[in-house]
Amino acid sequence: MRLKCIISYDGSSFNGFQIQPNERTVQGELQAALTKMHKGREIKVYGSGRTDRGVHAVGQVIHFDTDLNIPIDKWPVALNALLPNDILVIEAKVADDDFHARIHARKKEYRYFVHCSRLPNVFKRNYAHHVPYQLNVAKMVEASQYLLGTHDFSSFCSAKTDVEDKVRTLYQIDIWTNEDEVIFRFIGNGFLYNMVRILVGTLLEVGLEKRSPSEIKKILEAKDRRTAGKTAPGKGLYLWRVYYDN
Amino acid sequence: MRLKCIISYDGSSFNGFQIQPNERTVQGELQAALTKMHKGREIKVYGSGRTDRGVHAVGQVIHFDTDLNIPIDKWPVALNALLPNDILVIEAKVADDDFHARIHARKKEYRYFVHCSRLPNVFKRNYAHHVPYQLNVAKMVEASQYLLGTHDFSSFCSAKTDVEDKVRTLYQIDIWTNEDEVIFRFIGNGFLYNMVRILVGTLLEVGLEKRSPSEIKKILEAKDRRTAGKTAPGKGLYLWRVYYDN
Repeated sequence: MRLKCIISYDGSSFNGFQIQPNERTVQGELQAALTKMHKGREIKVYGSGRTDRGVHAVGQVIHFDTDLNIPIDKWPVALNALLPNDILVIEAKVADDDFHARIHARKKEYRYFVHCSRLPNVFKRNYAHHVPYQLNVAKMVEASQYLLGTHDFSSFCSAKTDVEDKVRTLYQIDIWTNEDEVIFRFIGNGFLYNMVRILVGTLLEVGLEKRSPSEIKKILEAKDRRTAGKTAPGKGLYLWRVYYDN
Repeated sequence: MRLKCIISYDGSSFNGFQIQPNERTVQGELQAALTKMHKGREIKVYGSGRTDRGVHAVGQVIHFDTDLNIPIDKWPVALNALLPNDILVIEAKVADDDFHARIHARKKEYRYFVHCSRLPNVFKRNYAHHVPYQLNVAKMVEASQYLLGTHDFSSFCSAKTDVEDKVRTLYQIDIWTNEDEVIFRFIGNGFLYNMVRILVGTLLEVGLEKRSPSEIKKILEAKDRRTAGKTAPGKGLYLWRVYYDN
């Protein structure tokens, strides 16, 4: 039986999602808990995608196979009892036998939180990127319009990638203010390595009025990572939701 | 020269405010940073009061003496550079030579955050007390009225205390809801050991309709810790502000 679970994690103390020897990872902790439940038999966990060191998830999706006879509504409680308290299983559902969390993902939503304030805040130090300057949100919104739609996002992709096809579609970008935070939301059909962090890093340069909004168009056309802005830190990034056909 | 500083800290990784051998404490970290600035001469830090393990501060006040010739507005930057990133100096001011952060405190404000939701939230696990039940806020507000004014708060004080006079005055109590949180605010002239946490623990039993609001009056009159509710966990508690005459 294949299960699909929605999980949340605080990325602060993980070296990313993907399992690695001698590192604390989300996948590693999930597999350790599942292996314990299955009396030592190794259970492989598949995620909708990796998240980097320090990146958080509100609604990551995973799948795995099991032959345990546990009622589906008891699965979150059973798994949470074995997981560390910075990972939480929110929901478990029985999926089709050929369901794949990564391959079948149709859209993803990421959010990025910027703490915009003169002083840092100890309670946000792992949960938002601190920018001690005023940001021009209207200019960032203007800039974001150039990114909507289908483009080759090579300029917004880490050079450390072996993905060949860098064409992706962004369906929606919203940027808004909530108290001393500026929040970015991106919904797209897929995201390249570091794409959201480079998009945010570049938009922040527009917000700081170091670049004009129309430069975004030129950066896209250049298809060259060096033309875009800095990669914003992982701690402000949240994988918010993964969409499937059903 | 005596300096008065407002500091904030995330209590999650501290064994409380007060210095202790072989434990990570807020006072210990502050004194270590100041001693380094003073080239090894030990500088003693005095707080407005202790906070327990896991308890946070948004506006704790400390004082210490120094003969360093640093402009007063540079003190926060200088100290923050030497402090770990879960303590932040927000403001420094020159104080009178006889100013004392604890003795001269006139009023204190504490807030307590309850995360009221069926499921826990990984991002709040160190920052709020999770209660997976509905709370009757109106009943808690009704109950809180019995606590206002001057009372002997022996019933709301940990038995582990050597303070003799347990009479304190509560000037203000507010309880309100913000999204999935219930927030408590207490302003008083002083607080006994664990007092806010026992007040909240008892009010939560009213909110869960295990006790009636009028029981609070009887608990106060009993002057017996065993008549009050459980001590709510430290992680939901924030020392919010300390008030002085000037």
